[in-house]
Amino acid sequence: MASVRLPGLVDVHVHLREPGATHKEDFESGTRAALAGGFTIVVAMPNTLPPLIDDDSLCQAEEAGAAKAVCDFGIHLGASSHNTATAYMLAERVVGLKFYLDATFGSLLLADLGDIREHFARWPKDRPILCHAEDRNLATVLLCAHLENRGVHIVHVCRQSEIECIRDAKMRGMSVTCEVAPHHLYLSHDDIHRIGPGRSEVRPRLQAPADVAALWDNMDVVDCIATDHAPHLLSEKDGSNPPPGFPGLETSLPLMLTAVHAGRLTLDDLIDKMAHQPRRIFGLPEQADTWIEVDVDAEWVVPEQGVTRCGWTPFAGMPVRGRVERVYLRGQNVFHDGFFHVEPGYGRNVRQPVS
Amino acid sequence: MASVRLPGLVDVHVHLREPGATHKEDFESGTRAALAGGFTIVVAMPNTLPPLIDDDSLCQAEEAGAAKAVCDFGIHLGASSHNTATAYMLAERVVGLKFYLDATFGSLLLADLGDIREHFARWPKDRPILCHAEDRNLATVLLCAHLENRGVHIVHVCRQSEIECIRDAKMRGMSVTCEVAPHHLYLSHDDIHRIGPGRSEVRPRLQAPADVAALWDNMDVVDCIATDHAPHLLSEKDGSNPPPGFPGLETSLPLMLTAVHAGRLTLDDLIDKMAHQPRRIFGLPEQADTWIEVDVDAEWVVPEQGVTRCGWTPFAGMPVRGRVERVYLRGQNVFHDGFFHVEPGYGRNVRQPVS
Repeated sequence: MASVRLPGLVDVHVHLREPGATHKEDFESGTRAALAGGFTIVVAMPNTLPPLIDDDSLCQAEEAGAAKAVCDFGIHLGASSHNTATAYMLAERVVGLKFYLDATFGSLLLADLGDIREHFARWPKDRPILCHAEDRNLATVLLCAHLENRGVHIVHVCRQSEIECIRDAKMRGMSVTCEVAPHHLYLSHDDIHRIGPGRSEVRPRLQAPADVAALWDNMDVVDCIATDHAPHLLSEKDGSNPPPGFPGLETSLPLMLTAVHAGRLTLDDLIDKMAHQPRRIFGLPEQADTWIEVDVDAEWVVPEQGVTRCGWTPFAGMPVRGRVERVYLRGQNVFHDGFFHVEPGYGRNVRQPVS
Repeated sequence: MASVRLPGLVDVHVHLREPGATHKEDFESGTRAALAGGFTIVVAMPNTLPPLIDDDSLCQAEEAGAAKAVCDFGIHLGASSHNTATAYMLAERVVGLKFYLDATFGSLLLADLGDIREHFARWPKDRPILCHAEDRNLATVLLCAHLENRGVHIVHVCRQSEIECIRDAKMRGMSVTCEVAPHHLYLSHDDIHRIGPGRSEVRPRLQAPADVAALWDNMDVVDCIATDHAPHLLSEKDGSNPPPGFPGLETSLPLMLTAVHAGRLTLDDLIDKMAHQPRRIFGLPEQADTWIEVDVDAEWVVPEQGVTRCGWTPFAGMPVRGRVERVYLRGQNVFHDGFFHVEPGYGRNVRQPVS
């Protein structure tokens, strides 16, 4: 079929490292990588330096995004033990409230059931709550959502226990949605030796092949594909204390199109999970005159370096299908055969930043 | 009112240390302490040496109980990662299946959501599941029970977050019951210095005064009082690696009667939480011609030593009300003014041990 037109893709889970770690990525380099990957909206995570948990820190991210973004963007607020009484006041300015129940990069971690429940009770019911909640902690947040009679979105599901628990919760009528990252669909324990121990560090960790298989087997339970794009420099990944995270914006669509070619999901499934569902679940606006053109048959091999500032990818050397040829964002052809035609600041915040 | 007749009390949570640690307690010394405390049924926990997780280990406990117990008894089976496929086959021989989601004395610990869910799915729905599940882990097991559309009992609730979560789960129509231990109603952080750091070790730990207050404030949410009688020798408690646990069988009724005198609950509440409710929740048999006679007004001070083998109590020196004068078990006056008139082996297993 060669070139097809798809809706602008939406990635609700990216780490743009701004404020605080712009040597890894910033709103410009990250949103350029997004356009190159076919995304026209990305939503940035709050585990920055400082973490985005109050007006001051949120302003820093809003200003950086407004000045630098080349695609549309939103920001997730972080739930901490320090902002249980105040987070909800910032709800209009952000896409969702992000809970970290398991340790990952950065300082955000919510340990106490009382704090978790207070955030669940106070955050507006029509605004998303999204949780990094692995294994047992997944069950914890499903219960908290149930007690408040509200929905919850589970990020980067990676274990058989998790996808089956979400499947069963959906069957029981509970209001839960989830996302899976391409690296948890394509990489397992077995790849750690090949990729290298430091470069393989990611949270949640790479799982067993049986977990990978369970994700594919339950693809109908997966609402969204989200990259968890989490760039770190190779000098950091290969250092003595490698930080967890992979880049993912430029490889997500080709990896998922490769799965379409392999018959593991349909192109309609892909569009649902990478465009329609994330938009619906997170209440993101339609973008007028916005689409992408993709050569869905193109065959290529993932190179070491892409557009992202970090300069490496765990998928290097992997043969994939599908190449983003053109991206139109609000009428403007912002990406064309590898070249950008857009100025920093063209991207809009999908929420209402303080003015 | 002086002497009143009450039903034989039921304690669904005792550690009799047999098999494996009979220097601390055994079925005889522990059930003697039970009679002295007014209990005519106690249910023994499975974190023994070896832990009670299979036919062999369960036989050891059944045989010890049959030979030595002076009051009626039951046994809880332990849920481990090794018996997910087999535990249910032992259901007829035990009272309930006990989950340890938090670390405590002994080796039983269930970490993985998959194992927890498999046990919940396989254990007969008409047989109790009881969980040591603190804070976030409490929410985990409530969700697991909800997904299986079955009930769950939460042991030794001690935090405000926990009792409020259970309150809200009950309001939401979920099938959950819980017990509180007298030491979590009478002792807090603030008592650790007085009792001593080693002697104060207990799991769950002593909590803040605000947590103690929340338990009293939500006494209507508390289904049972259970002692979590967990004796260790003073030489162990005062040693370099003090094991967690307090004795409790002989002080539970006086402490709760003291609360009745203080107007914190009624005598009917006490009877419900220490006799009727534990019997109902755990499906324990009625005991014919069985009652206790208690001088509910008697005032005394808890001594250092009691009947239990461990020879100390964290409540020593505390003024209390109410003294067990006589215990009648199946027609026989087995305890009378401090003296026992019963032979080891008089106590019956309330379930069907292998014969």
